[in-house]
Amino acid sequence: MPIHLIGLGLGTTEYLTLGALEVAERMDELLLDTYTSWIHPDLMEYLEERFGEKLVKADRRMLEEGIEKLVERAEEKEIGILVPGDPLIATTHISIVLEARRRGIPAYLTYGVSIISASGSASGLQAYKFGRITTVPRDGVGVETCYRVVAENLEKGLHSLILLDTADGGLRIPDALKMLMRVEDEFGYGIFDRESLVICLARIGSSEELRWAGRVSDALKLDYPPPPHLIIVPGELHFAEAEALKEILGADEDLIESYRPPRYERDRVRSYILKVERVLEEIRIMVGLEKVVDVIEIVKSYLEDSKKFLENGEVFNAVAAISYAEGLLDSLRNVGYVDFEWPRT
Amino acid sequence: MPIHLIGLGLGTTEYLTLGALEVAERMDELLLDTYTSWIHPDLMEYLEERFGEKLVKADRRMLEEGIEKLVERAEEKEIGILVPGDPLIATTHISIVLEARRRGIPAYLTYGVSIISASGSASGLQAYKFGRITTVPRDGVGVETCYRVVAENLEKGLHSLILLDTADGGLRIPDALKMLMRVEDEFGYGIFDRESLVICLARIGSSEELRWAGRVSDALKLDYPPPPHLIIVPGELHFAEAEALKEILGADEDLIESYRPPRYERDRVRSYILKVERVLEEIRIMVGLEKVVDVIEIVKSYLEDSKKFLENGEVFNAVAAISYAEGLLDSLRNVGYVDFEWPRT
Repeated sequence: MPIHLIGLGLGTTEYLTLGALEVAERMDELLLDTYTSWIHPDLMEYLEERFGEKLVKADRRMLEEGIEKLVERAEEKEIGILVPGDPLIATTHISIVLEARRRGIPAYLTYGVSIISASGSASGLQAYKFGRITTVPRDGVGVETCYRVVAENLEKGLHSLILLDTADGGLRIPDALKMLMRVEDEFGYGIFDRESLVICLARIGSSEELRWAGRVSDALKLDYPPPPHLIIVPGELHFAEAEALKEILGADEDLIESYRPPRYERDRVRSYILKVERVLEEIRIMVGLEKVVDVIEIVKSYLEDSKKFLENGEVFNAVAAISYAEGLLDSLRNVGYVDFEWPRT
Repeated sequence: MPIHLIGLGLGTTEYLTLGALEVAERMDELLLDTYTSWIHPDLMEYLEERFGEKLVKADRRMLEEGIEKLVERAEEKEIGILVPGDPLIATTHISIVLEARRRGIPAYLTYGVSIISASGSASGLQAYKFGRITTVPRDGVGVETCYRVVAENLEKGLHSLILLDTADGGLRIPDALKMLMRVEDEFGYGIFDRESLVICLARIGSSEELRWAGRVSDALKLDYPPPPHLIIVPGELHFAEAEALKEILGADEDLIESYRPPRYERDRVRSYILKVERVLEEIRIMVGLEKVVDVIEIVKSYLEDSKKFLENGEVFNAVAAISYAEGLLDSLRNVGYVDFEWPRT
């Protein structure tokens, strides 16, 4: 008999789909995944009433360690697993499907409303301008990875969705921000300064839903509904996105108008370019070799290339060209053919 | 009176949520957005039967040019707009909410099942390993942008979701692949060669759903249900993801085992490193200056730095270091202090 993974949606009763209910109805056994995500008490009550004794709450142990037993039972009965959000998002669920396949048991999916797209809609930011998704775990282990992912996304001008752990009551935005601000102190890219722009979303899809955009310093003091919480760090803002943040999420006009997402690599290339330009203005040629003048001409042409690459957003080519130019200059200086000082930035 | 944007989900009746139906039920006027995405004929029929004359099909003209009229009507009646997928994904819908805000009319969202998360689930790939989403329009204008986005994602080892235009019957996978293969001929990163791995998804969430992974050459010949179609280009595969592609999507074992997502920048840095290493082995010092030997020592230390950066995945720092080392060497050669040939790659 087949196994069904059934998406429950955002965790409130409104986000149950007709398909999910129809499939759940005809199952012989119905497991409710209570550990990979959040379920509103009202939804829990609804499911208990609607499915009665057929509904079994499944914890981590049952879903992860009990996969074989679970799949074995599917040889005799049709089993459904109700999964908050969209099924197969978590590795646990993929493992169940794979184990079923190995035993020749068909596995079907019923997709659900996922926080991954809903949070994009809730923010008014455009879906195709999001970079990689990242998470902050409750204990803060790996929060540097989260910071790095956001930095990488910003480098390309992209928005970052940061999911906060929902286990054990769920991580709250102020606590996650404090962790990220400690990483900021260490890395210093300017992503989570007190003045930085963040979007805070809480209990998306429930009647207590909070959608807000503003400064980190204000986000720390905000009054939040209980978790699940999440944070979005915006990248480059399109006009309509800027409007949405101001008009719908209540962000300060000045904050949005002056918003320039930090771009560490781009800024570094820009500072390299400035330095080479400065050196070329002040360089003293110590010997009268024509070859030295030729090298300086090459430096100039790589400098121009680097500027053009940067204009086109080709940061990799830009840094290659300007670093090469720096090498040319330093070599000449090291053998005593020219003299200059690298300006401090 | 408020305006409601109501997500319809994946375009089939099963993906209607209880919330969407409940909100739609109590609207005075109900617009159905028939132009931003796909709606299955069965769903269309269901909505027509359920909502009768209240339901008005809204085309581009009505939704985009008629925003002011629409919002004006909301001063007297409660208006719902049924939107395939998740509302607010398209700029059109954000504009409606903004116009409502300007007139002091509240706007509410009912989130829907979105292809953006469903396609991730359908592929068995992990949601937090997707990079930026991209699209191929019907007429192929901007398909180079799509190629570049995929290349950028692959550079970070990330998966790419490529949505295909759903207008006018929808773009089919083979046609989109042919466009992308033409860009491949021009750019040559090895993303859309005949042997490249792609995931093909069609009519996700409907009974005709197709989920398949394999070579581009086979994807061109596959028998597809009608659009909507979409393509995923996988990045680095986690063990469970590789299993899913083989076991669930039927990909060839050899193809998956040997899969190395193309990484153009990383490969370029690697080839630069090899070249500098080769030069250092064969370099001839033409004059007996200690300073020349010093510069070569600096080259060696930047070479080592570059290798370390690359190992850590810091491609930007790696290319900066190795390009600087190249500049040092070329400068020495240009003034005649050393002699070598850059190896060809």
